[in-house]
Amino acid sequence: METKAEIIAVGSELLLGQIANTNAQFLSKQLAELGINVYYHTVVGDNTERLKEAVKNAQSRSNIIVFTGGLGPTKDDLTKDTIATILDTELVTDLEAMSYIEDYFSRTKRHMTDNNKKQALVIKGADVLKNEFGMAPGMALTAGDKYYMLLPGPPSEMNPMFLNYGKGWFLEMFGIQEKIISRVLRYFGIGESQLETDIEDLIDSQKNPTIAPLASNGEVTLRLTARHESETAAIQLLNELEEKINKRAGKYFYGYDNTTLQQEFMHKMMERNLTISAAESLTGGLFSEQLTAESGTSKVLMGSIVCYTNEVKSNLLKVAEKTLENDGAVSEQCAIEMAENIRNLTNSDYGISFTGVAGPSMMEGHPVGTVYMAIARRDHPTESHFLQLAGSRDGIRKRTVKYGLHHLLNLLNSH
Amino acid sequence: METKAEIIAVGSELLLGQIANTNAQFLSKQLAELGINVYYHTVVGDNTERLKEAVKNAQSRSNIIVFTGGLGPTKDDLTKDTIATILDTELVTDLEAMSYIEDYFSRTKRHMTDNNKKQALVIKGADVLKNEFGMAPGMALTAGDKYYMLLPGPPSEMNPMFLNYGKGWFLEMFGIQEKIISRVLRYFGIGESQLETDIEDLIDSQKNPTIAPLASNGEVTLRLTARHESETAAIQLLNELEEKINKRAGKYFYGYDNTTLQQEFMHKMMERNLTISAAESLTGGLFSEQLTAESGTSKVLMGSIVCYTNEVKSNLLKVAEKTLENDGAVSEQCAIEMAENIRNLTNSDYGISFTGVAGPSMMEGHPVGTVYMAIARRDHPTESHFLQLAGSRDGIRKRTVKYGLHHLLNLLNSH
Repeated sequence: METKAEIIAVGSELLLGQIANTNAQFLSKQLAELGINVYYHTVVGDNTERLKEAVKNAQSRSNIIVFTGGLGPTKDDLTKDTIATILDTELVTDLEAMSYIEDYFSRTKRHMTDNNKKQALVIKGADVLKNEFGMAPGMALTAGDKYYMLLPGPPSEMNPMFLNYGKGWFLEMFGIQEKIISRVLRYFGIGESQLETDIEDLIDSQKNPTIAPLASNGEVTLRLTARHESETAAIQLLNELEEKINKRAGKYFYGYDNTTLQQEFMHKMMERNLTISAAESLTGGLFSEQLTAESGTSKVLMGSIVCYTNEVKSNLLKVAEKTLENDGAVSEQCAIEMAENIRNLTNSDYGISFTGVAGPSMMEGHPVGTVYMAIARRDHPTESHFLQLAGSRDGIRKRTVKYGLHHLLNLLNSH
Repeated sequence: METKAEIIAVGSELLLGQIANTNAQFLSKQLAELGINVYYHTVVGDNTERLKEAVKNAQSRSNIIVFTGGLGPTKDDLTKDTIATILDTELVTDLEAMSYIEDYFSRTKRHMTDNNKKQALVIKGADVLKNEFGMAPGMALTAGDKYYMLLPGPPSEMNPMFLNYGKGWFLEMFGIQEKIISRVLRYFGIGESQLETDIEDLIDSQKNPTIAPLASNGEVTLRLTARHESETAAIQLLNELEEKINKRAGKYFYGYDNTTLQQEFMHKMMERNLTISAAESLTGGLFSEQLTAESGTSKVLMGSIVCYTNEVKSNLLKVAEKTLENDGAVSEQCAIEMAENIRNLTNSDYGISFTGVAGPSMMEGHPVGTVYMAIARRDHPTESHFLQLAGSRDGIRKRTVKYGLHHLLNLLNSH
């Protein structure tokens, strides 16, 4: 059966922008993993007429409708009443939910009001989904050729309810046997449109596995998703596609799934027992901060000097006065001395430096986005890189650090 | 005119759950402040037929339709083509956008592909909204009795475009007269529930101005919103409420609107022509990184040493060997020497230090979350602070920096 799912979130707080609809994100990811296609998200306020209209709309185009929100005790909570009306059925008290609610109030010695009892009402004939982190139970039911699931709004209640009960209900309903396996490939140093152009034919012919590109924070990811009755076969499909893609784009590939450039870098350094130190002008500590965000850093990062002023560059970091005078702080020569000196001062295996213009104004005649970086190594010649970046101050600094990590990873991979 | 707005986000990445629809949240909040009622959010994938159907649906129930996403260079980006078709008009090249795109590619020396040119196409007759942080321009137009606005998907492009151009377009279109003025009050060092308890009666009786509390990243903010035909009167209402609130909570108040602790600190330091340097162990560069995220830093931050290892603490930062042996790196004495030495080494007015245990494991017998910080000043005794924080590695580091900035601000405010 072709699945066309729609997620309807009910709650005026979403329409006022007080919260983001993270429930739809969570459920979309979960349903995608089950192989259920989500085609629409809808958000509607706590208003019976508009909710009715949204449900009718969903019925006309989807066969699975998942609701979040509107199961609570207040008079604004109208999801289950509305759906019962549309399905021409009624609400009945779920005894288990009722005893849980009564128990909660007696345990916490709080006074139970009448509207709390309303939370134990469920749509007649529905399978009740237990709420282990709140009072309102969820529901799942079929009516006509449609599947309905009602889940509570608070993510702390909704997420475990779906994982523990909702997911199993769908698996059973759809007799899902197929394995769905995803793998994310991460790229840096290539733009989204360039990567898509490079693998256009693969994207155009995608079916199983599918390829979903996404660009964010200067990186591009490809999510490959394969489906097969055999897990081994699904993994094989992913391997084959990955190989095809990386034959073309492999030089920009750096890792899988939720990894980051700094994590990959840290792993490789720890594996080889290598240490690094940094001299940060342009990046102002960002490189060091990102490495120390990972635990175990003290084995890799010896220390760094943030040398925002020329005084600190010459006094602490020992950059030659004549370099600062003749070449300037924003120069290849300055970057090289910074990298070599921080490595020597801390006796590290690697030293990296960043100098340049983050903006908003030009510096020493260089436009915003001018970046020089250098990497010094024990017993190797120092290498330097020039970049001309665009964007905001923040974006320039962040991408500079990524380029630095990318160059370091390339060095580690090539030796 | 009654406003019924709908926000349509276009993008399969939303339906796959790769990202949350934070654009709808941002726009909902913005439109609510303009007095425009948002009744629906819709998310639809990169599919012409389904997008068409979603637009027709929106046309039947809303008079303002704001789109996000689908303005990029790839063939999945089909928002403007689809809307042009529905409105029976065509796309034309916007010369300003085209020259911006060409300029971007020549400046960054990257190769411009044909699909990048597609980004300069706009709907004929639309007002073009400038994209200052990306290549795809936005559009706003009226057709029939409806208002349409097309915005890019990446929040880093969409948010400034709406604030700088989209908002003004709506104000003009609807001749909005009533002034709606918001002011955000920012607090650090007090919990949300404590602050709400302290001003409970004011929250309960709120009407105009309204009070909306929000806690995030260890800070609490109160958003006050006043409406009045006269701007002066609205401001007066805000002033009166702010005074009432800060009579009770003023000691935790540190600034307005989008300011941050580091911005407030930088302003005060610049006003007084003071300089600082930092010795960062626990925080690994985060303090310096946050200061250098602001422009103009080179006048304030002389430099810093990230001293993640004891070798760097003693060799570069000159912490006494016997301190590291007897008191340990996680100690008040070490924090004091770190702060005094970095101040002396860089000849700054202030020196601040951070040492402690970010986790995941104990260190030198101290539990995770143990923090010592010290502030050294020219011609003043050095002061030290002890903190015992809870939470993740990341959370501990971030809150440590905030406490440091808070102590520095208190020092600056009391002298």
